[in-house]
Amino acid sequence: MQQVPNAEIITIGDELLYGQVVDTNSAFMGQELGKIGLRVRQITSVSDRAAEIVLALDAARERADVVLITGGLGPTKDDLTKNILTEYFRTELVLNEPSLRDVEAIFARFNRPMLEVNRQQAYLPASCTPIRNAMGTAPGMWFEDRGTVFVSMPGVPFEMKRMMTDIVLPKLKEHFQTPAIEHLVIQTAGLGESFLAEQIADWEDALPPNMKLAYLPSLGNVRLRLTGTDDGQPNLRARMEALLPALRERIGAYIFAEEDIPLEEAIGRLLTERGLTIGTAESCTGGFVAHKLTSVAGSSRYFLGSVIAYDNQIKIKQLSVSTETLALHGAVSEETVREMAEGARKNLGVDVAIATSGIAGPDGGTPDKPVGTICIAYADAHQTVSRRFSFNRGRQINIEYTTTAVLNLLRLSLPPVQ
Amino acid sequence: MQQVPNAEIITIGDELLYGQVVDTNSAFMGQELGKIGLRVRQITSVSDRAAEIVLALDAARERADVVLITGGLGPTKDDLTKNILTEYFRTELVLNEPSLRDVEAIFARFNRPMLEVNRQQAYLPASCTPIRNAMGTAPGMWFEDRGTVFVSMPGVPFEMKRMMTDIVLPKLKEHFQTPAIEHLVIQTAGLGESFLAEQIADWEDALPPNMKLAYLPSLGNVRLRLTGTDDGQPNLRARMEALLPALRERIGAYIFAEEDIPLEEAIGRLLTERGLTIGTAESCTGGFVAHKLTSVAGSSRYFLGSVIAYDNQIKIKQLSVSTETLALHGAVSEETVREMAEGARKNLGVDVAIATSGIAGPDGGTPDKPVGTICIAYADAHQTVSRRFSFNRGRQINIEYTTTAVLNLLRLSLPPVQ
Repeated sequence: MQQVPNAEIITIGDELLYGQVVDTNSAFMGQELGKIGLRVRQITSVSDRAAEIVLALDAARERADVVLITGGLGPTKDDLTKNILTEYFRTELVLNEPSLRDVEAIFARFNRPMLEVNRQQAYLPASCTPIRNAMGTAPGMWFEDRGTVFVSMPGVPFEMKRMMTDIVLPKLKEHFQTPAIEHLVIQTAGLGESFLAEQIADWEDALPPNMKLAYLPSLGNVRLRLTGTDDGQPNLRARMEALLPALRERIGAYIFAEEDIPLEEAIGRLLTERGLTIGTAESCTGGFVAHKLTSVAGSSRYFLGSVIAYDNQIKIKQLSVSTETLALHGAVSEETVREMAEGARKNLGVDVAIATSGIAGPDGGTPDKPVGTICIAYADAHQTVSRRFSFNRGRQINIEYTTTAVLNLLRLSLPPVQ
Repeated sequence: MQQVPNAEIITIGDELLYGQVVDTNSAFMGQELGKIGLRVRQITSVSDRAAEIVLALDAARERADVVLITGGLGPTKDDLTKNILTEYFRTELVLNEPSLRDVEAIFARFNRPMLEVNRQQAYLPASCTPIRNAMGTAPGMWFEDRGTVFVSMPGVPFEMKRMMTDIVLPKLKEHFQTPAIEHLVIQTAGLGESFLAEQIADWEDALPPNMKLAYLPSLGNVRLRLTGTDDGQPNLRARMEALLPALRERIGAYIFAEEDIPLEEAIGRLLTERGLTIGTAESCTGGFVAHKLTSVAGSSRYFLGSVIAYDNQIKIKQLSVSTETLALHGAVSEETVREMAEGARKNLGVDVAIATSGIAGPDGGTPDKPVGTICIAYADAHQTVSRRFSFNRGRQINIEYTTTAVLNLLRLSLPPVQ
């Protein structure tokens, strides 16, 4: 098997070093390069100073077969990357007609006058292959120089991502003739990383040498990514898929999708398949469950609405929770959260409802119900299900964790498709 | 004035290069180092391989007076940093009693048996000054070697942050005797960065040479940070504060805080001062406004609840919006959103309410009301105020921008303190 090509990423901009901007571009590029079989060896963030950028380029070319560079391509005088690369590769700026037409088209679309600084963006180093920018005015540049590929892209995340996906990744695959790589993503919720690993240890150990499993955990949710590398045998993807039934046998109840979508989107599909509408009744999550559900495009087809009830009077009036239940068991109890879910179903006119009540913290805990005590419930026409658990890792994490837990309870409680 | 010391940051971990984890530690460290007057020259992320870590250390020491390192301090066999540093500085591991007591205390607190791997965490390089970890089991390490300071900290963000704040930053200030630096943060909302810059251009141009203004924009909100460096004259902070009245004259209406707190926290204070309770009625923001308000600890003292009404029937039933208004003007209209705010006030029993209705996208637009058409309203006992605007940069950004806009409308509309 051929050597895995080394890649390096250089992100340019004082705002990264000052910490004004978190570098999310590198993580995206790292993920995408991994998927086509390149290894990212180093990520370097440097200032907008020319001498420091040149040092970073020199150092990266020593180690890497390809260097991806983002930032410094805007129209202002802080943006030095294009001029530095022109000098670095001993070439000169020439007008690139297709890029000029792209820039003109953007200004025509927004009906704004084009300035000379924008026209200058269509001048590119003579030795580069221009990369079209479908989302903005700064073209990217592809250089090949003494055995190393250099790719310069804008720092604006959505411009860079589109350029990577449409042009740079296919071109890198072709250039390096990387072996075919396939990925299967299995999304799980409800079991922590180490417990999951324990459940599938024998399955993982039996994977053939050209297949590897990665655990990508976030709050209450573990993404499994099975990566297969071409071993010269046919039907790589089909052979990977043939391993899934044994995985489902072991952890089937925790799998919510066999593709890379978030839990709220998987739930949207389950609801759509069943023709069910949903609403939420939230106390401690304060609207975050509704926010997650409505972050999915098209969610208005099944999400109807919510009642956020911090105040007990709102629990009583809007959600028909009984004063007796509140007096007897308190707001944070399975009894109350069940009535919240049932009340939301009835009052919002939805088919299924989920509810949360808990002590997110940092204040409000009691010896009996410390901060992190959370109750959740699900209600449909046939059943009401509730859970109580304890979890305390700070207010924001408590809110997010509770949200994942209640969405997962919903997933597990929905009736089968008729 | 003395030379500004150069700092470099090295973050260690394959997960950073694979893009499984976004490196947020570097931005935090960059911000904090800037505040005490150090310049971050480069940020480097490297893998868990020993040879590559050593190369990064060698390269950083060439350029920097201080190198901050995070990651690789856990108890598992992937965690190599401590052993690499021990070898790099030609020293040896010795048991550090105070660290051992710290680790033992943590296991005692969680009532779990301590394993040998955890005991090993209390063995530290003989030549380092140990740094206590108040939040976890891995101590940090401070080395001074041939004129360069190296600080190794855990990669877990909340452990690293606490260590930085409590120990590393004070120690760096003392070590480098950096000139006194003062910061004033002025938080603004409602005016874009370039317009803001225009309004205060003369004020900014007249700043003395030892004071600098930075613009830190996020969605609908621009943070201004005035940084003053010691110029040998007394009362630096007082002289900076003396410049604020002239700033307030120019952009006072946009300033929501003269300290570094988010808009939702500033609003919590305004409501508390006035003894007012609040609720929200949300369509397009889907609970995000309620989520923002309730992300503030202690918000249950003024936030009572919300109705999220995607569905028109919920707007009618829960928010008392009239069927005529909906038929005549549509759900996305100032007329409807005003009734939503007024209905929320009445039905939730709150003093003030804010409401949103709009087309977040990507679908649902019409020629008359394209995606990004947003209506917001504010209602209290004396007045109802509404606004309509257009803005389309994708569903999630539309939701966040609308949230900032309605919170800012609330801020500007609240009655004065009695």
